Amino acid sequence: MKNMSILFLMMFGLAQAQSQSNPKVDDKLKSIYSTALLNGKSYSWLDHLSNQIGGRLSGSLNAQRAVDWGKAELDALGLDRVWLQPVMVPKWIRGTFEYAHIETSPGKTINVPICALGGSVATPLTGIKAEVIEVKGFEELNNLSRAEVEGKIVFFNRPMQADLINTFEAYSGCVDQRYSGAEQAANMGAVAVLVRSVNLRLDDYPHTGSMSYGLLPFKKRIPAAAISTNGAELLSSMISLNPNLRFYLKQNCKNLPDVQSYNVIGEIIGSEKPEEIMVVGGHLDSWDLGDGAHDDGAGVVQSMEVLRLFKEINYNPKRTLRVVLFMNEENGMRGATKYASVSKSKNENHVFALESDSGGFTPRGFSIDTSPEKLKTIQSWESYFEPYLIHLFVKGGSGADVGHLKTDANILAGLKPDSQRYFDYHHAENDTFDAINKRELELGSATMASLVFLVDYFSL
Amino acid sequence: MKNMSILFLMMFGLAQAQSQSNPKVDDKLKSIYSTALLNGKSYSWLDHLSNQIGGRLSGSLNAQRAVDWGKAELDALGLDRVWLQPVMVPKWIRGTFEYAHIETSPGKTINVPICALGGSVATPLTGIKAEVIEVKGFEELNNLSRAEVEGKIVFFNRPMQADLINTFEAYSGCVDQRYSGAEQAANMGAVAVLVRSVNLRLDDYPHTGSMSYGLLPFKKRIPAAAISTNGAELLSSMISLNPNLRFYLKQNCKNLPDVQSYNVIGEIIGSEKPEEIMVVGGHLDSWDLGDGAHDDGAGVVQSMEVLRLFKEINYNPKRTLRVVLFMNEENGMRGATKYASVSKSKNENHVFALESDSGGFTPRGFSIDTSPEKLKTIQSWESYFEPYLIHLFVKGGSGADVGHLKTDANILAGLKPDSQRYFDYHHAENDTFDAINKRELELGSATMASLVFLVDYFSL
Repeated sequence: MKNMSILFLMMFGLAQAQSQSNPKVDDKLKSIYSTALLNGKSYSWLDHLSNQIGGRLSGSLNAQRAVDWGKAELDALGLDRVWLQPVMVPKWIRGTFEYAHIETSPGKTINVPICALGGSVATPLTGIKAEVIEVKGFEELNNLSRAEVEGKIVFFNRPMQADLINTFEAYSGCVDQRYSGAEQAANMGAVAVLVRSVNLRLDDYPHTGSMSYGLLPFKKRIPAAAISTNGAELLSSMISLNPNLRFYLKQNCKNLPDVQSYNVIGEIIGSEKPEEIMVVGGHLDSWDLGDGAHDDGAGVVQSMEVLRLFKEINYNPKRTLRVVLFMNEENGMRGATKYASVSKSKNENHVFALESDSGGFTPRGFSIDTSPEKLKTIQSWESYFEPYLIHLFVKGGSGADVGHLKTDANILAGLKPDSQRYFDYHHAENDTFDAINKRELELGSATMASLVFLVDYFSL
Repeated sequence: MKNMSILFLMMFGLAQAQSQSNPKVDDKLKSIYSTALLNGKSYSWLDHLSNQIGGRLSGSLNAQRAVDWGKAELDALGLDRVWLQPVMVPKWIRGTFEYAHIETSPGKTINVPICALGGSVATPLTGIKAEVIEVKGFEELNNLSRAEVEGKIVFFNRPMQADLINTFEAYSGCVDQRYSGAEQAANMGAVAVLVRSVNLRLDDYPHTGSMSYGLLPFKKRIPAAAISTNGAELLSSMISLNPNLRFYLKQNCKNLPDVQSYNVIGEIIGSEKPEEIMVVGGHLDSWDLGDGAHDDGAGVVQSMEVLRLFKEINYNPKRTLRVVLFMNEENGMRGATKYASVSKSKNENHVFALESDSGGFTPRGFSIDTSPEKLKTIQSWESYFEPYLIHLFVKGGSGADVGHLKTDANILAGLKPDSQRYFDYHHAENDTFDAINKRELELGSATMASLVFLVDYFSL
């Protein structure tokens, strides 16, 4: 009886904990959401970053303009401290042309949209023309003989798996082709690689992204380009009609020496425990084809908005709240590693870090990387979020930038927006401001600010 | 002890019920979602309905073409029965012009985008020019004297409340201006009404929609038009600079006699309880400005897809599963009332009806109108939907069409997609196919099919 009573009480207590209610907390969250939706600044910030600055690849003039803009806007918020953290970043430039066609018979060609992958070497100025060998992945490639691959263009054409509900899982299942395809194909004697764009939609946008040659010596490196999904479908069906067709591409992208850049950082110093640091952040650099509105302009302005919302609702955090606009997430992660190493050298205590780098879509919740106990506490806050339709509090990775701050004791988290449309825009020319819905963006800011508030309020 | 044990067991049993798992059911849902995402037909159907037919206002040639198309597509599915249900519908036509400007001083004008509200009378051919009195709603209007209103254009300018998370609530808070504004203003001697578009975004699209003159005799009816949100903001600020500015509008819309139209109906006859009917449906008519892709082309093709998915996964429903493409939801509801009255006269037993009429966006769950017991049973199925991120099973209204089928015993439901973008497109020129995301649309079909499957499988 006693044991059962205890068990009963435990269950009852747990049920109570899960439906806990604290009107003061409810009010704060309501203020946060109302302020974000009625008087938010994230959308006009993103308008500027997308339309007045635009794509901002690490090392570019635009990246420097974004740094200057970020610093100026954080200065204008009246934070306690705003500074630039120097970091050397790689500089890769797309060059002045990228062009491709399918040659179905001598002199008969069909143009297809391609773009160089970030980090790729150029083709010779006159381009490369070769037969194409289509594969779905590395296993299929490695089952071929060297003779079957040598002198050819390897065409990686594994599509994203459309029946996965979380499109980031589908991304994970394909991105190896883009990242390591050139290295794998070069080792088999290929002259170039062509990779199906990592996009669930059939359309005409080639999607760029980072790639690596691994340990390949410079002279063995081969050009790597992405082809649009429509282009990939066309090429594949043309190959099935004529396996000996030839593909022509040229591009004059280039790797240059590293250049100076910066993480942009601002903070509100904690009123009670200033040495305990909470970070919110996104990455300031973007690919060069579009304006980087979703990736990751959205995360940048949402993170800045968290601090602005705290000021608007007059909440002074007990801990230090820091916004970090990381440089060079896309092709080097230099900003994140620099930030983490400086923090370590200063013995800083990051108790919490939250990243937004999954697009400015309707927020659904968070992916949380922490101890089971802390995860459970965060999950017990679910009812506070119910009015805002935030329902995902799942164990998982946080983000590429804040992931570097992992300790045994802290909490890392990533905002999880609805993922259905993300890869329509990701790393492509159409990642522009018009693809952003104001309310969806603002709900993301408010959701981030609410979690930061709860972590601070309950000193988790 | 005994009582406590029972209570304990009840709690434990409940917890078990809530996390119930049935691998056969899990597999069926997985088949439904995979088929919808990998091999769905809703998107290509909607492409045709939007781009080859387009806007299809009741009584128009396009509405008839949509009826013919719907019947042909249902015929092609190999259902047990497909038929047209005749219904007389109102016919209102927009006419050949609608035009407006603000006259800031004699001869100095600024054009603003307007559109006639559905059902409105025309202006005189030469238009109407008058001073404008701006109000936020009926209370403010009724506090004015007749002399302040007489001979003027009443401008209803209450915006949607942006801090409501569910945008349909914000819609409910504004739509009275559009629906009854003309009647109210005419009673005060106004010569026309201008209504702020029911849109949360600031843009240049006027949004049409239904309106009524109530019991006003024909000769007292005044023209009613919607003005874009940007136009409304401009007009309001111009009025604050010059309260005596004049507004000019003309439109030559017209009400014509009723014409013959049809609900389009198809069914799979139930294998065990054919007399128990489950309905899925959306409305086939749309407003005329756009293509009605979200409102309600999405609901039409998602409903058709439910039956197709059942065939694809080889599930024969125990009950009769009927798809109804309702005519005339937008401006008369004649299709729904006809369907309900015919059903009643035939003594049909509708055990379940599910409507999709909230846009083709990522589904979040359902609004459910039934007894508390049945609601609880549906809520106990939540875990089946977890892998698909479907989390809302809330008590609420079902839909304008299936709502007519309400009984004490049955279950009515409405699909609840993410609502943030819906009113960007609702009843406006930009409600077109390009505003539809294929995956979001398909997830909606699969979510509907899953609920229908569960209701049938568990004979709820």
